[in-house]
Amino acid sequence: MGEFGLIKHLTKDLKPVQPSTKKGVGDDCAVMDFGTKKVLMTTDMLLEGIHFNLEYVPLKHLGYKAAVVNFSDIYAMNGTPTQITVSLGISKRFSLEDIEALYSGIRLACERYGVDLVGGDTCASMTGLAISITCLGTANAKDIVYRNGAKLNDLICVSGNLGTAYMGLQLLERERLANAEQPDFAGKEYLLERQLKPEARRDILEGLHKAGVKPTAMMDVSDGLSSELLHICSQSGVGCCIYEDKLPIDFEAAALAEEMNLNIVTCALNGGEDYELLFTCSLDDYEKLIPVEDLYIIGHITKPEYGCNLIGRNGEELPLKAQGWNAFGN
Amino acid sequence: MGEFGLIKHLTKDLKPVQPSTKKGVGDDCAVMDFGTKKVLMTTDMLLEGIHFNLEYVPLKHLGYKAAVVNFSDIYAMNGTPTQITVSLGISKRFSLEDIEALYSGIRLACERYGVDLVGGDTCASMTGLAISITCLGTANAKDIVYRNGAKLNDLICVSGNLGTAYMGLQLLERERLANAEQPDFAGKEYLLERQLKPEARRDILEGLHKAGVKPTAMMDVSDGLSSELLHICSQSGVGCCIYEDKLPIDFEAAALAEEMNLNIVTCALNGGEDYELLFTCSLDDYEKLIPVEDLYIIGHITKPEYGCNLIGRNGEELPLKAQGWNAFGN
Repeated sequence: MGEFGLIKHLTKDLKPVQPSTKKGVGDDCAVMDFGTKKVLMTTDMLLEGIHFNLEYVPLKHLGYKAAVVNFSDIYAMNGTPTQITVSLGISKRFSLEDIEALYSGIRLACERYGVDLVGGDTCASMTGLAISITCLGTANAKDIVYRNGAKLNDLICVSGNLGTAYMGLQLLERERLANAEQPDFAGKEYLLERQLKPEARRDILEGLHKAGVKPTAMMDVSDGLSSELLHICSQSGVGCCIYEDKLPIDFEAAALAEEMNLNIVTCALNGGEDYELLFTCSLDDYEKLIPVEDLYIIGHITKPEYGCNLIGRNGEELPLKAQGWNAFGN
Repeated sequence: MGEFGLIKHLTKDLKPVQPSTKKGVGDDCAVMDFGTKKVLMTTDMLLEGIHFNLEYVPLKHLGYKAAVVNFSDIYAMNGTPTQITVSLGISKRFSLEDIEALYSGIRLACERYGVDLVGGDTCASMTGLAISITCLGTANAKDIVYRNGAKLNDLICVSGNLGTAYMGLQLLERERLANAEQPDFAGKEYLLERQLKPEARRDILEGLHKAGVKPTAMMDVSDGLSSELLHICSQSGVGCCIYEDKLPIDFEAAALAEEMNLNIVTCALNGGEDYELLFTCSLDDYEKLIPVEDLYIIGHITKPEYGCNLIGRNGEELPLKAQGWNAFGN
């Protein structure tokens, strides 16, 4: 039934009893009210062999990324990350230097984003490395953006570019399988950076704030654009229409995709791990969006009857599918 | 260097930058200030093969315990647990029914303690089950009890009994190794319950509150009395003296220890997982403590020069050691 189905199934009839719980399961973060500001909470577990392969991921980068993906969830609610706790399960093959490297990446991310590391837990593991990070953040109640606020005719916007982190992973995997002494990454450093050391788009929120735009619905793109858009549409009770030729795609990523015989649009729709911000906002905000850098309007919200569709370069309409890798028959 | 040494090493020069961070690494919980009440945060990771053995731990019990040990950390700061997030890593050998059983235990614990399950993360794992739970709680600033407040001549108190959860584990392990078709648990149900389904001592805090006693330092006993007392003394800059004949020991646990040729006092000092509350309070509160049920005075705080010692039944003085299993030469 998939991760989302499973969580939905397991949590379907939960009823909060704490007055401080404002929003439970079902968004990027839970929302609590402990006084003047709202408190956001998100958590993420990374397991060796599933989420990362230490054959090509340096531990410092892994630590950095593990922290940043949590910050990204807080930003995706229009909040500010403030504290994290870190739990590690470590098998015997890791040395103290390894764990220091991992921690140095976590701490670098905390410094860059102004977040405090306030606690955690370190224990032995039977096999491999397990990392679980929980992040708290704050926001004023009126600023929080949920997934369920998209309205008919809203613009659909995305930051940066899509599919690039996925192409970085393909590149790492290719060079690993080639087993060459010197992997060939020349000219493709940006792809690697997007996979190994992603950043959370705090700058986009600052740009939107400066421009006076508040999104109506927002998520970060961790599982792929299609999957995230389907979440927003299902929770907002709307449909959507996005355009293939509007999808922001990096040149290096497109070149590598061609080299590897992959469809870059499929990668952009389903690749995941880009940690870009995907949001909807009122059509009235169109003019205000123009000065915001690195932001792209890729479509608009429709009536729910229309469904969720991609308009191809030749005008053909293709329904969006979550994590399908089959939107184009690949 | 051990878990505590490692965490200390990795976090030794962390400096909080968020105004809301009031206490970072180094106590049962971090403490944040988001408005009127303080917010406590604690996290715990449980890994199969390290923290639990599914050969004898039912999944529902495991879920219950995983939640309760986090609540216990919040109570150990004199706070009230309010929300948890749950991250699960699940390998292919677990069925949906298995995960439902695990979740039903978590949810039962939440219901019993009035805590909201507000989010989480469920992912695949390569091997075994990984559970990471983070718990938030609240407390009035003036009520929070840290580990560092123990003063000279304070009484040292502990709730319930000690070493019982450890004896429950020994029993389970013995029956597993005996590989009998029907394990023999007759008359020992309480030991099993202490190991498989511990409770957090909210009732003790209620009793203290009613009696008008505020502890000066407090922890929950998860790693064993010796280890926890050494934490309190080191963080408070004091020594301590506890008495062997004052240690609360369960009759069933003592009987089983004798049967298995174990020293029950060593088990009580180092066994761990009892989740009882260990605290110090002013000598002036002595009279007020008397009506609080299931609470035992086991010693007092001394000058730091005295060190941390156990006075044996024959008056001999033995230095307390953390997790040593060697206080009595066993």
